Amino acid sequence: MKKYAHSLVLALAALSVPLSAQVPGGMYKYPAQQQADDALTGDKYAWDFVEGITTEVGPRQAGTEAEKRGREWAMNWLNKHGFENVADEPFMMNTWVPGEVHKAEIVSPFPQPLVVQPLGGTPSTGPDGITAEVVEFESVDALAEAPEGSLKGKIAYVTHAMAASQDGSHYGYFGGARFVGPGLASQKGAVAIVIKSIGTDEHRNPHTGIIRFPDGVDPIPAGALTLPDAANLERMFDRADGPITLKLTLTPRWIGETQSGNVVGEIVGRDPSLPPVLLACHIDSWWNAPGAFDDGAGCGIAAAAALNVSKAGQPLRTIRVLMAGAEEVGLHGSVAYSKAHIDEPIGVAYESDFGADRIWRFESNFRETNPDLHTKLAKSVARFGVANSTIVARGGADINIARDQNTAIIDLQQDGSRYFELHHTPDDTLDKIDPAQLRQNVAVWTQVTGILANYEGSIKGE
Amino acid sequence: MKKYAHSLVLALAALSVPLSAQVPGGMYKYPAQQQADDALTGDKYAWDFVEGITTEVGPRQAGTEAEKRGREWAMNWLNKHGFENVADEPFMMNTWVPGEVHKAEIVSPFPQPLVVQPLGGTPSTGPDGITAEVVEFESVDALAEAPEGSLKGKIAYVTHAMAASQDGSHYGYFGGARFVGPGLASQKGAVAIVIKSIGTDEHRNPHTGIIRFPDGVDPIPAGALTLPDAANLERMFDRADGPITLKLTLTPRWIGETQSGNVVGEIVGRDPSLPPVLLACHIDSWWNAPGAFDDGAGCGIAAAAALNVSKAGQPLRTIRVLMAGAEEVGLHGSVAYSKAHIDEPIGVAYESDFGADRIWRFESNFRETNPDLHTKLAKSVARFGVANSTIVARGGADINIARDQNTAIIDLQQDGSRYFELHHTPDDTLDKIDPAQLRQNVAVWTQVTGILANYEGSIKGE
Repeated sequence: MKKYAHSLVLALAALSVPLSAQVPGGMYKYPAQQQADDALTGDKYAWDFVEGITTEVGPRQAGTEAEKRGREWAMNWLNKHGFENVADEPFMMNTWVPGEVHKAEIVSPFPQPLVVQPLGGTPSTGPDGITAEVVEFESVDALAEAPEGSLKGKIAYVTHAMAASQDGSHYGYFGGARFVGPGLASQKGAVAIVIKSIGTDEHRNPHTGIIRFPDGVDPIPAGALTLPDAANLERMFDRADGPITLKLTLTPRWIGETQSGNVVGEIVGRDPSLPPVLLACHIDSWWNAPGAFDDGAGCGIAAAAALNVSKAGQPLRTIRVLMAGAEEVGLHGSVAYSKAHIDEPIGVAYESDFGADRIWRFESNFRETNPDLHTKLAKSVARFGVANSTIVARGGADINIARDQNTAIIDLQQDGSRYFELHHTPDDTLDKIDPAQLRQNVAVWTQVTGILANYEGSIKGE
Repeated sequence: MKKYAHSLVLALAALSVPLSAQVPGGMYKYPAQQQADDALTGDKYAWDFVEGITTEVGPRQAGTEAEKRGREWAMNWLNKHGFENVADEPFMMNTWVPGEVHKAEIVSPFPQPLVVQPLGGTPSTGPDGITAEVVEFESVDALAEAPEGSLKGKIAYVTHAMAASQDGSHYGYFGGARFVGPGLASQKGAVAIVIKSIGTDEHRNPHTGIIRFPDGVDPIPAGALTLPDAANLERMFDRADGPITLKLTLTPRWIGETQSGNVVGEIVGRDPSLPPVLLACHIDSWWNAPGAFDDGAGCGIAAAAALNVSKAGQPLRTIRVLMAGAEEVGLHGSVAYSKAHIDEPIGVAYESDFGADRIWRFESNFRETNPDLHTKLAKSVARFGVANSTIVARGGADINIARDQNTAIIDLQQDGSRYFELHHTPDDTLDKIDPAQLRQNVAVWTQVTGILANYEGSIKGE
């Protein structure tokens, strides 16, 4: 069976490649194949990037001086490694900072502190905090069904049943407690909301993340409890005879318009008239998180792939790396990049923004319009343990431009089983990265980028 | 081999037990054997205790109002479950509280916040903090070798190579960074010290713990960094060309004499003239830790064993449970208990104060003086996966009285492989307890206590 499959791969691959790509023995050699194989055992760049930015910069909240240092650090790194046209493309944004005081305490009947962090964009409780009865909801759906005005003067608490999932799908499904819970609670009259962190770990580090209130809905303070604290609060509801009173003190603030920026750098191709290959990630992290998994690793992977491909000889197309600013707080960098460059067609885009664990699935949005290329790419990374898929790639947060231009998109799906143990928490530190899995990412990215940056025709095939 | 071993057990056991303990079929039945077996699958008490105190009280720092609530909660629980002579035996102590501000930040060359907590008993830096160059020591031995005065005006940083160990021995060996590091640093002229937490986890929750300065040595502020933060600081030392400057702000304070207490309760025996069996644990925890592993579980295990034995009929000896106050900050409760009761002989003492993972080894201090009893006890718990040992039991923090009276001591050694992931950290929460392993603890304690509380002669055999 194995032999048969192998022969089939060779037969199919041979159908669509020029003779010049054949190597002695008849084995098809993909562009940058050797560099991909080398990266699997000896990555020189991705670890260096993520170790450097987490050590020398640390947390880099969007729109702040720390993010600016992160962008400068990244530009220095790109310049040092030979990228061309390195720049910080500025944009303005309305900036939120978390403030100093993040406290929650049960006032009665079981007085004790709980560990809380503000959700991104939440208003302040004021320094004296808000003290009110807590009302428990087993899901965001249950909150949605609460009668209008029923939470008047109360603090809503919303839990969920998120579990670890390889494809990360539990985040979208159970994340509603954060995405829409605060707006719903405000609409029902609540004075504040706390949620069980949208995460899967068992540590006392809350998961923050952006919230938005619908137009016309008054923003209310919103915090995330750690999972152990949420479990404790739920046990209190099981045990308490009367109301549970919580005091919540969060002092974030909006500081007005500040500058952020998108860091870009290029490996210039032999034919600059061809639309470039865009490799994306984001440079910012939450204030509480050094941003190793999210997304220092992603920037390291993207930059490493571009460099590795360049070692195989100047590619046909330009490879542009985009390290977007201000992703966490609302994709400001991705939106600004698309707006600034919408009239400059790109050939294909993909991003790394889901940690540093192994890539397990290949998806494109051109399987039907350019099946030969889709198949070739899928087969090229099978040796790294990556499966083909019929799912249509849609890309992620950092490549709005690809969706706006309706161009080719690839998703190199990473294993998200551990991702939501770390995502948007203080635990997103360098030590969580498995160097072997990081190298597999670089190998897959190098292989795919090697093929795409040397592809002559329309990548999407339309 | 298995059959042979089984026959040997029976033969040896039969040698030293009265005929009345023989049951049909010739199998020796230990006192409370059935209760021990039942506990293995259906503990009714230990989980209830530790869930209750962590949910309804939470952190209970020694000498504070929170510890008082913990003692009251425990007395209520003991009374509710039928213990007699339940009391809170008061003592006074000099009390330290952690204060509100616990911050560390790298000022240069890589500005960013680090996560820090004060070590127990540390003085304040004052609200404005201390800013100074950090000097790195790879071990407490290296710090000890630093020349006198060489740290004048500096902040010492001490790391270590502690790893997880089943017997917990790495704590004693590598814990010197905390136990004596602050005193040494002060003697060398340092203005403050930060250490890598004495722990084995990878989360951003520092491990606190008590420190003491030698007589005549000026106390200096002392903090613990999380392990990821310590690793980050060490990478900074590898990368920095010049000095690393740290700002440390810790605002703990001593609040003078306050009252703490030891909670006691008894299952009164048939012959109160016989010295009682003392089962110990401690009721306090650090301010940052709900104290599930350390030591809510231990109190639950001890209380459960006493109750289970009582279900087998009134024991010969009184079983006394001691839930010591103020253990974490210097064994104040254990010392006070010994002082108050030194003239009332106890028969044997043992404690549970090393988490809630399985018991794997049995030790006594009477293997040579009462070998029959030692062997009987060891064999009685072999079916729960506990091995015999020639190590001489010395007991732990909560049973000073047994050492002071030079009486019998048992150690039912728990698996400490996970203990220092949680010890003295915010992560010491109920969800970390494995109910199956907790039940094994209760089974072993029930079995051992059943035998000892019904033993007629001198337990130590001297």
